Amino acid sequence: MKTLIDNIAQLVAVPPGPVAGRAFKAPLVIENAAIIVEHDKIIGFGPSVDAPAGPFDRTIDAGGGTVVPGLVDCHTHVVFAGSREDEFVRRIEGASYIEILEAGGGIKNSVRSLRDAGLDDLIQQSRPRLDRMLEWGVTTVEAKSGYGLTPEDEIKTLRAIRRLDGETPIELVPTFLGAHTIPPEFDGRPGEYLDAMTSPAVLECIREEGLAEFADVFCERGAFNLEQSRRFLTACRDHGLTPKIHSEQITNTGGTRLAVELGAASADHLEFVDDETIEALRGSGTIPVVLPGCSFFLGSEPAPARKLIEAGLPVALATDVNPGSCTIESLPLIMSMAATMLKMTPLECLVACTANAAAAIRRADRVGAIAEGYQADLLILDIPNVQRWAYQVGVNPARIVMKRGRIVLER
Amino acid sequence: MKTLIDNIAQLVAVPPGPVAGRAFKAPLVIENAAIIVEHDKIIGFGPSVDAPAGPFDRTIDAGGGTVVPGLVDCHTHVVFAGSREDEFVRRIEGASYIEILEAGGGIKNSVRSLRDAGLDDLIQQSRPRLDRMLEWGVTTVEAKSGYGLTPEDEIKTLRAIRRLDGETPIELVPTFLGAHTIPPEFDGRPGEYLDAMTSPAVLECIREEGLAEFADVFCERGAFNLEQSRRFLTACRDHGLTPKIHSEQITNTGGTRLAVELGAASADHLEFVDDETIEALRGSGTIPVVLPGCSFFLGSEPAPARKLIEAGLPVALATDVNPGSCTIESLPLIMSMAATMLKMTPLECLVACTANAAAAIRRADRVGAIAEGYQADLLILDIPNVQRWAYQVGVNPARIVMKRGRIVLER
Repeated sequence: MKTLIDNIAQLVAVPPGPVAGRAFKAPLVIENAAIIVEHDKIIGFGPSVDAPAGPFDRTIDAGGGTVVPGLVDCHTHVVFAGSREDEFVRRIEGASYIEILEAGGGIKNSVRSLRDAGLDDLIQQSRPRLDRMLEWGVTTVEAKSGYGLTPEDEIKTLRAIRRLDGETPIELVPTFLGAHTIPPEFDGRPGEYLDAMTSPAVLECIREEGLAEFADVFCERGAFNLEQSRRFLTACRDHGLTPKIHSEQITNTGGTRLAVELGAASADHLEFVDDETIEALRGSGTIPVVLPGCSFFLGSEPAPARKLIEAGLPVALATDVNPGSCTIESLPLIMSMAATMLKMTPLECLVACTANAAAAIRRADRVGAIAEGYQADLLILDIPNVQRWAYQVGVNPARIVMKRGRIVLER
Repeated sequence: MKTLIDNIAQLVAVPPGPVAGRAFKAPLVIENAAIIVEHDKIIGFGPSVDAPAGPFDRTIDAGGGTVVPGLVDCHTHVVFAGSREDEFVRRIEGASYIEILEAGGGIKNSVRSLRDAGLDDLIQQSRPRLDRMLEWGVTTVEAKSGYGLTPEDEIKTLRAIRRLDGETPIELVPTFLGAHTIPPEFDGRPGEYLDAMTSPAVLECIREEGLAEFADVFCERGAFNLEQSRRFLTACRDHGLTPKIHSEQITNTGGTRLAVELGAASADHLEFVDDETIEALRGSGTIPVVLPGCSFFLGSEPAPARKLIEAGLPVALATDVNPGSCTIESLPLIMSMAATMLKMTPLECLVACTANAAAAIRRADRVGAIAEGYQADLLILDIPNVQRWAYQVGVNPARIVMKRGRIVLER
């Protein structure tokens, strides 16, 4: 099965991640382009006039639109149960994070809902979110556990992620966030909680069933400190899980430097990252993941993305979709926010949501780029240039979504 | 034709605008409700158990969703030609407003595009935006001219608005914004420009063809000063057009007090409104219209909506959709922004986008409310409570959109 996609006004040939420096700011844009897909892979692309004559099994007319790699959402909590609009309203009315927490809100609210939900129910509640993400052009999604916080409920969440990976066109990348927060039944006993979460029963089960690729921890005051984070991630790493960290979100805890020390795939949030830490990230394989939707949703200061980019770092963007601090499912909306709030150009936003996001989930060798041999995860957008995507805030130009060479959505 | 809409989890019975004080903060929400529509009007509503037995020609099952009035977007520049993503990128890269203006950008960029476009082309370019607005649940839209700035091109724009009113299910409310900016050919001669724009040839044509209901001016440094604004609006008022003003957007010019003095329907923007002006608005019939999308898009300070509400004012919200300072077409996205950026509760946001927005376009006697005899402009939302709408940022729950009793969109 050989497909020619022709009549492309702009083909944004995002190179394989991680992408930093000049290629980040100005990835190759080919005007009047064509791209050739064979089975599930990209086998060639370039100016339309140079395209081979064929034969092709199928020709897709891009209609003078723009073609980009399928988007990669590299940080989500998309698999959850229940809804927390009540807290949203309370926060608007002036309640503090602590007040909401003390009233049984916050992460613990979602923990109760997830524990109450069966596997099928959890899948059924999460599926519409993934369907909408696909509509926006997202073809790969990292998804974390972390609302279970018992061995059974964490495993249940990871199984839900795997089921959703099989049941939707989206490729799901599972992360074990067993150290999201300390559940009520372990109040004041974080060590014992981590014992339970890193027990062979849990980590061996995850390994045997292949339930997760990454392990993640919320390294923050009120959650897990640096030493506890190190311990959790090291134990997980010993069982084959690559570390990731939620770091410097509310305070500067040193989590990002721990990420570098442990060779983490990514350090995520970074609202309170300092210059020394930025220096530590340089030359590391750890991708800084910035989450402006969270800052928008909470009305707090965003991470200094511009500074990270100027320091030569391959910044990634993600939605952080979750019921408490950011309900935004649309990665293109996050691109618009990165443009207006973080002063990232539309091209930088695209690289951050493709090549660099792929690097943050260690898939830069096959997704997030337009390169020979890469997975044919492609979007045909109904816009004459890529800049218009972030510019038209909230408008969805995705006309065709292709995953592994197959058209999975057409509008 | 008598229709029963039943199985409504929450019916938000927004009262007729303008709504201020307690009713603004907590409009009546009826749980397990029903509503009855006859022809194009609402004839009754209340708890489902109290609904009459019928007979009905049609029954619509709201499926345990939420019913609200159709949204009213009371400040837009939705009828325009061309696109300005190039300026969007330049501004992200650090270019100032003045630099963009001097490079031929800003409003003048859109003026060139609109003058080049024929009537049919202008309609064709604007129509998809209105179609998307309808999808989000917007059933009434104010639309301004102001990118023509010659008598012919302003009239052309107003005719396009009228054609679109006839061709789409949306009810369009036309505003003559002849004083948007001083066009290049009148550089340094604002008086002569206003002479041309307020000539009997223009204002009589508008009156005779019924092309506009309102007149609007951009009262700002670099555009029109207070005296010029008064002159323009007074001349228009003498020809039957109700005043509106863009005021206190970039600097405090006193435009809002002029609005009160002239009995304007609304004073819009208000980013730099002061306490004295807020006091002047109290007791006036002038609705303060807040445009947070513009602040989001430009990365500038939003208007003090909370302060206006606490002062007892019937604040309205609108998109301000336009190609330069806010491309957002989705009024529900603006509600989410008002919630996060302005600390307005979801219920306040809804009142601001219905009853108060209707008051800002002097249609509060028939749209923007759920009341007997009101136009049956209704939305059936696939959410169990109204709070979830603003909370789920960027997610569209609109399942059925009804305009004047007719289902015009179903998803």
